[in-house]
Amino acid sequence: MSKKTMAVVAAACTAALLAAGAAHAQDKKVRLQMASSYGSTLPILGEAAAAFVKKVEAATGGSVQIKFNEPNALVPVLQSFDAVSQGSVDSAWTASAFWSGKDSAYNFFSSVPFGPGAAEYLAWLSYGGGKELKAEMYGQHGIHSITCGMLPPEGSGWFRKEVKSLDELKGLKMRFLGLGAKVMDKLGAATQLIAPGEIYQALQLGTIDATEFSTPVMDLKLGFYQVAKYYYLPGWHQQTTALEFLINKKKWDAMSPAQRAAIEQACGDTVQETVAQGEATQAGALKEIQAKGVELKKWPPEFIAAFEKTWKEVIAEESAKNPNFKRVHESYAKFRAEYAIWREYGYLKQ
Amino acid sequence: MSKKTMAVVAAACTAALLAAGAAHAQDKKVRLQMASSYGSTLPILGEAAAAFVKKVEAATGGSVQIKFNEPNALVPVLQSFDAVSQGSVDSAWTASAFWSGKDSAYNFFSSVPFGPGAAEYLAWLSYGGGKELKAEMYGQHGIHSITCGMLPPEGSGWFRKEVKSLDELKGLKMRFLGLGAKVMDKLGAATQLIAPGEIYQALQLGTIDATEFSTPVMDLKLGFYQVAKYYYLPGWHQQTTALEFLINKKKWDAMSPAQRAAIEQACGDTVQETVAQGEATQAGALKEIQAKGVELKKWPPEFIAAFEKTWKEVIAEESAKNPNFKRVHESYAKFRAEYAIWREYGYLKQ
Repeated sequence: MSKKTMAVVAAACTAALLAAGAAHAQDKKVRLQMASSYGSTLPILGEAAAAFVKKVEAATGGSVQIKFNEPNALVPVLQSFDAVSQGSVDSAWTASAFWSGKDSAYNFFSSVPFGPGAAEYLAWLSYGGGKELKAEMYGQHGIHSITCGMLPPEGSGWFRKEVKSLDELKGLKMRFLGLGAKVMDKLGAATQLIAPGEIYQALQLGTIDATEFSTPVMDLKLGFYQVAKYYYLPGWHQQTTALEFLINKKKWDAMSPAQRAAIEQACGDTVQETVAQGEATQAGALKEIQAKGVELKKWPPEFIAAFEKTWKEVIAEESAKNPNFKRVHESYAKFRAEYAIWREYGYLKQ
Repeated sequence: MSKKTMAVVAAACTAALLAAGAAHAQDKKVRLQMASSYGSTLPILGEAAAAFVKKVEAATGGSVQIKFNEPNALVPVLQSFDAVSQGSVDSAWTASAFWSGKDSAYNFFSSVPFGPGAAEYLAWLSYGGGKELKAEMYGQHGIHSITCGMLPPEGSGWFRKEVKSLDELKGLKMRFLGLGAKVMDKLGAATQLIAPGEIYQALQLGTIDATEFSTPVMDLKLGFYQVAKYYYLPGWHQQTTALEFLINKKKWDAMSPAQRAAIEQACGDTVQETVAQGEATQAGALKEIQAKGVELKKWPPEFIAAFEKTWKEVIAEESAKNPNFKRVHESYAKFRAEYAIWREYGYLKQ
């Protein structure tokens, strides 16, 4: 080939690449392994992960491909934080409350007892200080975290026996995730954190007497109705729950701006979609749970009052023990206090 | 160039294009003109449009560029539906209620009096039948519509005089958008729809006695506090408001799957971001409005009851007049009725 011919060829190739979209021309294909805390068949919790992965692939025209891995396939669920931190796993689909053993302040980024609904919670997370605190706490471990889902209230739990008095919580063995567990412990229960895939068996075998897990749709799917006939609501411990996409920070930084933008927007889109899907499906699930012979129970006011009073004690105790908990709680509480005038004037009373 | 050389060159170019991302390699650059119903400096309403445009450009690496045009720059605000339908304008940033003159059923896709908050409304729009009805109504006019923002409750309106009795609504000249206008008219007011950029002057000149517009943040920006000293809340007529990105259907269909996915996800991300930003900023705006000497007024219960009773009459009358209104309302009402058990059991009482 003559030099002139080569120059013409080079120019033609460059033009073709430019026509293909300036920024994407430089994008290297990225393939990420993703560990999930929730099984792929779990409504919303797992299904949203599958939808998120497809969204990213669609919007990037395949330049980013994320491989969903079932819980424990790459690493045990409760070790996925460390795996993503070290880079032995690229990314994870999970919720911050799973890392409460590392630092109780992580809880604030997935759910807070007696906390707000999805809209006010998103406001604190995105615009009220939550995002920066979360970036700091995950960043120290080399992890980039993106809020990637938002669920409606959970049920309060499945109980094999009716709970007739607060005294009956004493000694109760219960699976519990998040800050609500500390409340239950103070009221005398013995809580433990069991990964989602292992709860049913523990309840069936009597290793635990009760369990909370998620919203009615997901709880129905896990079949708890077969072994526990009392479903208590509302979920005072989790009035909304944020899901997260965690990714090793070096892998995140190595992607192109367009790839990172596409992932962020796929997460944002997943937030609105999980809100919509979550709200659209719970009523049907409650009716189906009833049809399976389960009794829906609302906590009497004295229980709700006891839970709330105990939650305030937990705040005080954890704040005294953990400066990080104190700092994150103060950001959250300040936001809610300032917001109060809007709740009072802006909303019709239901 | 020999045939062999040409084959080598072609192969090299193809490889370069494949490396650039398979789907994007086929993407033609798309430039869209977008007419906006809201000025670029309007908090959230206009700012979200600018953010949306940037999101699309970022995620597509510039392969889709949308040009924001100020209200009336391309076409008068109230004619942007027709312009997008005919293709003389590619796209529009707006809200469905602006087209209530064409068909009162369009109102259901932006807001409904005594309607739900953002989460339940998104549930109906996305999973309860709203999306399909909307696609049909816009599709008949060659328009593709994507929900692209979700706002917190509006204020109920700015009044130059205190409203001491329902009788004082009679003869009141008020700017009003959406189905709430029909309620106010039945209560004796004379409502008119004035485009956002022209409301302040109408209120200042006394062409109107009162106006509703949007949430406190946006209302503050438009300066109504300078000419009206009573701000009534809550906005019974609009407890949440969906914004829309409308695009000419032929232009939409001509884009690549990746480009369409990126736009859809940018809209979804904008929904969650407007929810968060909307909720995060109203309390501060209310306090600033008070500081400017405006009295915040809550409608007394008898007003709220009268508004709600009249709204039910409007439903009956419009349903009798407009089969489309009846059909869309029935979908919406059926969803809310089924949802009721979830509201009752799932949520803590505030």
